[in-house]
Amino acid sequence: MAISLQDAVVQSYIVYSAILALKLLAVSTMTSMKRISRKVFANPEDAVGLKGKVNLNDPEVERVRRAHLNDLENIPAFWLLGALYVTTSPVAAWATLLFRVYTVSRFIHTFVYAVVPLPQPARGIAFGIPYLIKWYMGIQVILHYATAL
Amino acid sequence: MAISLQDAVVQSYIVYSAILALKLLAVSTMTSMKRISRKVFANPEDAVGLKGKVNLNDPEVERVRRAHLNDLENIPAFWLLGALYVTTSPVAAWATLLFRVYTVSRFIHTFVYAVVPLPQPARGIAFGIPYLIKWYMGIQVILHYATAL
Amino acid sequence: MAISLQDAVVQSYIVYSAILALKLLAVSTMTSMKRISRKVFANPEDAVGLKGKVNLNDPEVERVRRAHLNDLENIPAFWLLGALYVTTSPVAAWATLLFRVYTVSRFIHTFVYAVVPLPQPARGIAFGIPYLIKWYMGIQVILHYATAL
Repeated sequence: MAISLQDAVVQSYIVYSAILALKLLAVSTMTSMKRISRKVFANPEDAVGLKGKVNLNDPEVERVRRAHLNDLENIPAFWLLGALYVTTSPVAAWATLLFRVYTVSRFIHTFVYAVVPLPQPARGIAFGIPYLIKWYMGIQVILHYATAL
Repeated sequence: MAISLQDAVVQSYIVYSAILALKLLAVSTMTSMKRISRKVFANPEDAVGLKGKVNLNDPEVERVRRAHLNDLENIPAFWLLGALYVTTSPVAAWATLLFRVYTVSRFIHTFVYAVVPLPQPARGIAFGIPYLIKWYMGIQVILHYATAL
Repeated sequence: MAISLQDAVVQSYIVYSAILALKLLAVSTMTSMKRISRKVFANPEDAVGLKGKVNLNDPEVERVRRAHLNDLENIPAFWLLGALYVTTSPVAAWATLLFRVYTVSRFIHTFVYAVVPLPQPARGIAFGIPYLIKWYMGIQVILHYATAL
């Protein structure tokens, strides 16, 4: 059995992975915009032209940076596990549902973390659902290829 | 020549990559558990429900976070380089050995960094072996595809 | 249509992705070398053998670490988006040019950030060009697979 680019699950994986990549990039621009609006920078050469100062502890900038780091901790693992999960021939509708819920949850996560900080458990839920989806996909992959261990 | 999912090296790559992804996810849960046990959080909305306080400098939490960051700096590069290395048609037993040693070493790295901190060179060795495996795979890939530069 | 390892765009993607992976690994060694030369470490077990001290705020070490983190925020997204972009059958010369410019720019970024810090907009340009290339590839991918949304 080969993986085909015409396969619905493959195409679903591709489009949601690309959306998550652009979302990850967008959060790095959010950090820059927050730095500029707060006039708070990590490097003296950035501060000098924008009449800001160097400050590595601004709470609003650090909050966006934590949201960004959380994406870095989670989205590349989705790219890998999602791609491997596709190779296990999952049911198309189910796999697509997982990819959609994953993607929407990660957008909500960033929103409640860095755009409009909400009381817990908002962020916990928005983190937990995609986190469990990754574990589910990973376990499916390991079970499917367990003979190769 | 095509890459087949029935190929032993491909299956070995898939299963060890998935294990490393779940290991990466597990360290993020280790961080949360350490935060809860130390009652030390990065966000006020996390601290309030768990009767903790905001502290970004707790040495035990920061140690787990450094172990996590070290995984982030290393494991995605393995996913990429391992996948590309598979396309160079390596000898199956050798490639599988590299993937196994890589995976075991990264588990040991986390253990001696964040679970039971050991004196150096324990962590240095557990870092260095998988680090050299990545360089080896990367150089093999570049040599194999050097005409495409 | 299938993806072939003999395809020029595929080979170009593979070789530049591998170079970027080794570049990412090299920056982690740059951090270690900077720590050793400054005798400044993140862990007491590292400081003890090398007669250094624990300091998480050394400006030169932190500058290299920020360059490293910037690579982590950008290079894995290139690996993903570049691979997906290859599946959209881009014109070979154009795709190869993008991969080359991307790779060279990321080397320049690290150079002007962490080796010889230059005034802005040096780093901004070296960041912006590969950043826009990722957006371009990502949008091409989403448009190509939009029916799978």
